[in-house]
Amino acid sequence: MNHRDLAAPFAQSENLAGLVARRRPGYSLEAPFYLSDAIFQADMEAIFSRHWLYVGVAAEVAEAGDYLTVDVGGKPVLIVRDDDGAIRAFHNVCRHRGSRLCAEEKGTLGNIVCPYHQWTYTLSGKLIFADHMADGFDLEHHSLKAVHLKNLAGLLFVCLSDDPPADFDDMAAIMTPYLAPHRLEECKVAATVDIVEAGNWKLTMENNRECYHCVANHPELTRSLYAYSYGFSPESELARGVAEYDAIVKDSHARWEADGLPSGECERLSDVTGFRTMRMPLIDSGQSQTMNTEAACTRLLGDIREAASGGLSFWTQPNSWHHFMADHIVSFSVLPLTAGSTLVRTRWLVHRDAVEGVDYKVENLTRVWNATNDQDRRLVEESQLGVASPAYRPGPYSPHTEMLVEKFSQWYIDRLAETLDGA
Amino acid sequence: MNHRDLAAPFAQSENLAGLVARRRPGYSLEAPFYLSDAIFQADMEAIFSRHWLYVGVAAEVAEAGDYLTVDVGGKPVLIVRDDDGAIRAFHNVCRHRGSRLCAEEKGTLGNIVCPYHQWTYTLSGKLIFADHMADGFDLEHHSLKAVHLKNLAGLLFVCLSDDPPADFDDMAAIMTPYLAPHRLEECKVAATVDIVEAGNWKLTMENNRECYHCVANHPELTRSLYAYSYGFSPESELARGVAEYDAIVKDSHARWEADGLPSGECERLSDVTGFRTMRMPLIDSGQSQTMNTEAACTRLLGDIREAASGGLSFWTQPNSWHHFMADHIVSFSVLPLTAGSTLVRTRWLVHRDAVEGVDYKVENLTRVWNATNDQDRRLVEESQLGVASPAYRPGPYSPHTEMLVEKFSQWYIDRLAETLDGA
Amino acid sequence: MNHRDLAAPFAQSENLAGLVARRRPGYSLEAPFYLSDAIFQADMEAIFSRHWLYVGVAAEVAEAGDYLTVDVGGKPVLIVRDDDGAIRAFHNVCRHRGSRLCAEEKGTLGNIVCPYHQWTYTLSGKLIFADHMADGFDLEHHSLKAVHLKNLAGLLFVCLSDDPPADFDDMAAIMTPYLAPHRLEECKVAATVDIVEAGNWKLTMENNRECYHCVANHPELTRSLYAYSYGFSPESELARGVAEYDAIVKDSHARWEADGLPSGECERLSDVTGFRTMRMPLIDSGQSQTMNTEAACTRLLGDIREAASGGLSFWTQPNSWHHFMADHIVSFSVLPLTAGSTLVRTRWLVHRDAVEGVDYKVENLTRVWNATNDQDRRLVEESQLGVASPAYRPGPYSPHTEMLVEKFSQWYIDRLAETLDGA
Repeated sequence: MNHRDLAAPFAQSENLAGLVARRRPGYSLEAPFYLSDAIFQADMEAIFSRHWLYVGVAAEVAEAGDYLTVDVGGKPVLIVRDDDGAIRAFHNVCRHRGSRLCAEEKGTLGNIVCPYHQWTYTLSGKLIFADHMADGFDLEHHSLKAVHLKNLAGLLFVCLSDDPPADFDDMAAIMTPYLAPHRLEECKVAATVDIVEAGNWKLTMENNRECYHCVANHPELTRSLYAYSYGFSPESELARGVAEYDAIVKDSHARWEADGLPSGECERLSDVTGFRTMRMPLIDSGQSQTMNTEAACTRLLGDIREAASGGLSFWTQPNSWHHFMADHIVSFSVLPLTAGSTLVRTRWLVHRDAVEGVDYKVENLTRVWNATNDQDRRLVEESQLGVASPAYRPGPYSPHTEMLVEKFSQWYIDRLAETLDGA
Repeated sequence: MNHRDLAAPFAQSENLAGLVARRRPGYSLEAPFYLSDAIFQADMEAIFSRHWLYVGVAAEVAEAGDYLTVDVGGKPVLIVRDDDGAIRAFHNVCRHRGSRLCAEEKGTLGNIVCPYHQWTYTLSGKLIFADHMADGFDLEHHSLKAVHLKNLAGLLFVCLSDDPPADFDDMAAIMTPYLAPHRLEECKVAATVDIVEAGNWKLTMENNRECYHCVANHPELTRSLYAYSYGFSPESELARGVAEYDAIVKDSHARWEADGLPSGECERLSDVTGFRTMRMPLIDSGQSQTMNTEAACTRLLGDIREAASGGLSFWTQPNSWHHFMADHIVSFSVLPLTAGSTLVRTRWLVHRDAVEGVDYKVENLTRVWNATNDQDRRLVEESQLGVASPAYRPGPYSPHTEMLVEKFSQWYIDRLAETLDGA
Repeated sequence: MNHRDLAAPFAQSENLAGLVARRRPGYSLEAPFYLSDAIFQADMEAIFSRHWLYVGVAAEVAEAGDYLTVDVGGKPVLIVRDDDGAIRAFHNVCRHRGSRLCAEEKGTLGNIVCPYHQWTYTLSGKLIFADHMADGFDLEHHSLKAVHLKNLAGLLFVCLSDDPPADFDDMAAIMTPYLAPHRLEECKVAATVDIVEAGNWKLTMENNRECYHCVANHPELTRSLYAYSYGFSPESELARGVAEYDAIVKDSHARWEADGLPSGECERLSDVTGFRTMRMPLIDSGQSQTMNTEAACTRLLGDIREAASGGLSFWTQPNSWHHFMADHIVSFSVLPLTAGSTLVRTRWLVHRDAVEGVDYKVENLTRVWNATNDQDRRLVEESQLGVASPAYRPGPYSPHTEMLVEKFSQWYIDRLAETLDGA
């Protein structure tokens, strides 16, 4: 052993290509993928700077001048509705000396005025005022730098790359009929909660891609959610439950499709813009992810007339999942902070005409997922502490209950490989 | 000067061998040994992953199923008494997806059940349940990974290496007669206190290896402890005190040995499993390290009949020291956290039949060392701040009062050299 | 793209020379200068270890034994007035095992005694006591290591280099007549406030070198300070104001010079020991940087008889600025902590015979700059967040209102280039 080996476990970036190449399918990732600062930087480049990221909802920028800010791995982005009603995204950075333009998470403005020296941009990003500059200073060459943005039935996605993945449009074509009946654009955000998990963002995502852990960890969520939805061993003692569940799905789908609600599973998790969707039945009343399984809001969404319409789930790579129910929508975005910490932002949406205290109560609306998020946070944090052990080796995923975790992990590895091969 | 030299003071790991080779005997270590993140990683590899570390006492896992956890430089370890009464250590990591198994510092369990997906292991580490896995999944190949553990008269040591130093047994053979009369296994932990020192672990250890600093810094400890015990200059103004002390030691040792209490100094600090021991007289009543020097617990330990039996001290490399008195034991472990922070865990033990409030009071039992630890914390922290100065150069140790610091420093350098030479 | 490019944005220190060489005059610096840990280390070496740094005032060490400590980028320095009345600076580090000697920010002592093992030094740094050392230990070879110190009319500057820039004396020759009438050595510190800005030290300095941002950000400061003082576009709508201001300056300078107060601008910002000074008129009563522009202290300083003497400003590279008014002095030092955090220490001084509550009130004295500092902190922090964006590119400085920012940036680049060329 030479002294270089005494240095940090992942000091040599040469290892990344090797680690990617030797990833064993069906097994969790090697420890450096969760721990290394260098690989975290690689993730920020190869994943978060090149793919479509879910960052918020159109309802947050309902009127011209309404804005929303998001920090993507230290890169501030500003989303604003312009005077023509178009939603635009910009790097939230003044072209003068680089000050952040908007510091608040949301607000409303007429023009975009830098707080530092009052350089002023229109809502479409054009610089219209910069005092004291030299003769010949060209306002037109100092517009805000745009960020690609897509509005998928009210869900806002941005891509920091100049050349965003084209297959977003495939996802949009497939998903629009599923999402449209809930009319997200006619919703309002009833609550937003941020939590920081002391774990790598991939542990947060992996945890989201299976419900093997639900039965023992999520007493609130499993009041309404069938854990079967995420796959089960046909030979387990729960096989009868699985069969019953399959029958419920079949019946429900027939009924919901008749009501105009597309429900069948669509799984495209290996696409560059990977996603999966399915409308899933819920337990008991079958209405909503609440403690008593009943709708949390009396005002139903969009065209939906039947409260017992289950939950349309929509999962995207690399950073979101959403549950659209008849009465409300709960929507999650994952924003990596460091190799060992991750922001999970949860938004609950109800119909924009619903009245707090009359049609819904925030406490009732948010209780299940606030509890579930906190339980998941603990699971992610215990995993982060465990994979740091020299005894940790990638372990086998269940082919029944963790096949979606495998799809996430392989998608991630494929994206890194693609970048390493040269893009 | 080229621009590489502008980078961090210890950016080039090539320097480690050079720093080790040029260590000047009799002088404190060069600054990077206390400051560099790369050398901290080297310490974790060469010292804390290869040597026997003191981590706790058997009394903390008295019954089958009792467990204790410890984090060794980010590596979680689980210590548990199995159904046959054997104490075992495992990496505290599930073989499935790496979750930490036990999050609490201590507790009791029947089997070891992973909180994530309920993979279940026996107390001897065998996997007995893992739901939903593929046909052909082999439980037997997924047992917990064992960590080497030794129980030395109730003191628990672990070694993370597959090939632990063999000379632990020499230490055990020598130390058992010294320790046995105090019957540590019949004790209970009366108090545990953790403090975090904002300093490198070696500064914590160096500080422990001398009492040159005691007279001016430890008013509580020096009520009972003769600072002479740690060496003094024969030419200092305290020479008469030293001579008197030597006479007290001689008389005391004769009396204690007659009582069946081995007392003479044994110093093997340069062994791979380095240690030192000696039974030392205490001031005034000669009973205990308390404010009034009298026993803090009326129930004496083990076979000991005479309260005035001084204190048997036991120091180990790299991370512990212990004082065994007639009435109680105080035991310290040092757990590095980062290059600049260190956890010092102190346990006070009394006879398991002693009753709080009747036989002893925790405040009286812990007062001296809580005060002393806090004073030592400050000294370590001031040293950490000082050695960061460009003006710091290794300074000379006193050949009289700091010879044990020299032995620690040289032991440390020898261990690094050994690892660099290839193991 | 190879995998090395996936690592941290500034992993390769080879880039520093390239970044320095391609700096575009008239534009803000590239992002790594504000973000990179490696460049922060370079700054600490090339700037803060080689130049004269403003650290405090002679009034803080008024009597023999009075001391002041300062931490320069993790390097502790002790400033003390010795028994002969000379002010000296030492590395605040014991020559024994490196403990910091003085932990407090200020105090008074007879000798300098290390708290660890009581090694004792005189106020002139000579070791006079070290117990228990070997025969032949030479006290004389273990004196404290001196740090170069200059006292410029009561302002204390230190330089950590063995070979400090010689042109300090040029600055002293020019500045002494400006500063002397305020008799700083006869002042006392009425208040000291530390704030930590979450930004790179160069953003703090750049912000200080222009007042383009004042009108929109500093309502308190612009009650007394003409923003024109820092340059304005001759073609702006404020051109008439600028002309009026120029007339006021001309009249004021004539009057103040007649009163024995040198007032004309002197700009030497490109010197190694770069500085600038000018006595500037103030608004309304013209007396002081207070909310009502009137003197905050009824006892005027030194030889000054006329309260309406404007403000003598003195700016130094790399780390200070000062405003000397008739009634008080406000003095700022900038101490980098990390690449992304900076300590700004503000001292307000009044005549030593002024009585709190009678001649001045601390709240009134400090109000304007406490508010202004907090506003500047926010501007610096927003800039730090913005320059981290991949969209950030160096933007153009105004040739009218940011020419002094350009001088700071170019001075900084020149210093790095000088160091890279080999010193």
